[in-house]
Amino acid sequence: MTPINPPKSLDQLTAQEIERKANIGKIVTYTLGNLTSTYVNEGFQWLLPVVLSQSTDPLWPDPNASIETRIEVDIYGKPVRTMSSMIVHKLIAASTVYPKLFILSPNVRIEKSERGKTGKHIYEFTQLDFEIQNATSKDVFLLVETALCTLIKALKKDMKEALSAIGRFDALPTLEGPFKIFDREDLEAKYGETWEADVASEITQPAWITNLPREFYDFEDFSTGKWDNYDLIMPQFGEVLSGSKREYDYAKVIKKMEQHGVRKENYSLIIQMAKEGRLKPTAGAGIGIERIVGYITGVRHIAECQPFPRVPGIVHEL
Amino acid sequence: MTPINPPKSLDQLTAQEIERKANIGKIVTYTLGNLTSTYVNEGFQWLLPVVLSQSTDPLWPDPNASIETRIEVDIYGKPVRTMSSMIVHKLIAASTVYPKLFILSPNVRIEKSERGKTGKHIYEFTQLDFEIQNATSKDVFLLVETALCTLIKALKKDMKEALSAIGRFDALPTLEGPFKIFDREDLEAKYGETWEADVASEITQPAWITNLPREFYDFEDFSTGKWDNYDLIMPQFGEVLSGSKREYDYAKVIKKMEQHGVRKENYSLIIQMAKEGRLKPTAGAGIGIERIVGYITGVRHIAECQPFPRVPGIVHEL
Repeated sequence: MTPINPPKSLDQLTAQEIERKANIGKIVTYTLGNLTSTYVNEGFQWLLPVVLSQSTDPLWPDPNASIETRIEVDIYGKPVRTMSSMIVHKLIAASTVYPKLFILSPNVRIEKSERGKTGKHIYEFTQLDFEIQNATSKDVFLLVETALCTLIKALKKDMKEALSAIGRFDALPTLEGPFKIFDREDLEAKYGETWEADVASEITQPAWITNLPREFYDFEDFSTGKWDNYDLIMPQFGEVLSGSKREYDYAKVIKKMEQHGVRKENYSLIIQMAKEGRLKPTAGAGIGIERIVGYITGVRHIAECQPFPRVPGIVHEL
Repeated sequence: MTPINPPKSLDQLTAQEIERKANIGKIVTYTLGNLTSTYVNEGFQWLLPVVLSQSTDPLWPDPNASIETRIEVDIYGKPVRTMSSMIVHKLIAASTVYPKLFILSPNVRIEKSERGKTGKHIYEFTQLDFEIQNATSKDVFLLVETALCTLIKALKKDMKEALSAIGRFDALPTLEGPFKIFDREDLEAKYGETWEADVASEITQPAWITNLPREFYDFEDFSTGKWDNYDLIMPQFGEVLSGSKREYDYAKVIKKMEQHGVRKENYSLIIQMAKEGRLKPTAGAGIGIERIVGYITGVRHIAECQPFPRVPGIVHEL
């Protein structure tokens, strides 16, 4: 892969670059407005985000493969970490007060510096993170397909000028659901290790990839060994969404936490609620805002979609 | 003031409390949707938030009076702090790429534990933070008056059921702009130190308070000694918004930084851009989402408006 130069900070842009950045900004604005409206209109509650928490995403299987530092500090005498994802918060919230919820959640993942040049990794990003009680993967697929098809159609109608200015109006295909579904095992058999990039380069419409061995909270069918989870891959781009049906059965949750070597003390609420039968079956996902806008705008580095670029290895004053 | 018991976490709520929390959640959702729509429709660009930054709000005059810990960590070999407000980011962004901008910005301020019982302080909160190039305080007043009057009117129309369920439908007054404007000096002369609480208890419509000695970036008229800045006070509640016209003149910025003992090395971009004449005159403010919803819902503690309460001194698992 050709290494990609990191985007500049706002103060360093030329007049021409300011114009381009402003057009990308208009597409970010439109995307946020359109997606949040879709979720609100579908009856989702809009939750406020959390920055520091005792419990956050373990980022299994091997966070150390990609994460350089985990930020942990003490507040009021207790250790908290910066949010890597609100997955635990979503499971508890969707099981209690908010059966359909979404959050615009800024996540911090201090990715290793070498990831600064992939064009796809940033050390802070915003997820549209959502969760639905008693939903299946198919429910999530339909919701996301509707949301993205609606978004692209609306963008091509209302944002023609901004898209044209950055050369993306004609290049951006109209989307049509349902998207194709591939099993990761079949792709591995066909393409080997590079299956994600290979699929992304071949498809002309988005595609779901299912059955991805992942964190303990994703649903695993112990009888078949298949995972009921999914990524969404955009053509000529790659992953913009990850999600799954979730585990809620106490015995399975405990067994998987032990198999994965997860520190149970960090997830005592999930364990306790599962034990009491109060953890509900849910399904959900997180849409990476910078990635979906990165796909839409065709930028070389998704940090271009951030007003204050968060490129791994590079800390600007802002 | 009567101390206020902290709100419970989601897993601890009774069935009745879950219903109340869900109704408050509906009002949060509606408020976020309505306010973001208003700003988008007024031509503002919606910026993505930042969590960790070298530069953040100094929280002058005396952060140590209220802040227990400032969180500073190293990433990629550089010290960064959790965001206390995006004021510096707003000034640079509004001067360059985004002349009208807003951000739903989660801010971290580890308030002293005793503030946990005021009902008005939380250690993480979300601001609708906005900034406008070449605007005056009057422009900001009109925009905010329109946004809030529209919001309350729409809530009373569309959210009657949720407001009634929590007993706030009749108690919540319709708002009518323009709001009265008071000079802080006149209020101090009339009420003494308790002016903010006294004014809040007497007014029946929101009121602007101007001329508040504050951080270096708020505009100060050196010839009169008056500050061109403002708070918005809601009746029977208190402050929900702070803002100002901003300094942009190099000599004034430097002089005030020195007067205030601000570490200039943390604000080198502001200094450099002011020196080069690239820092533009702007005005803006931040609307505290939990506070405005706290006012609307009449909760005893604004942390009730958070799905995951952030009460100073109390760290829940989520």
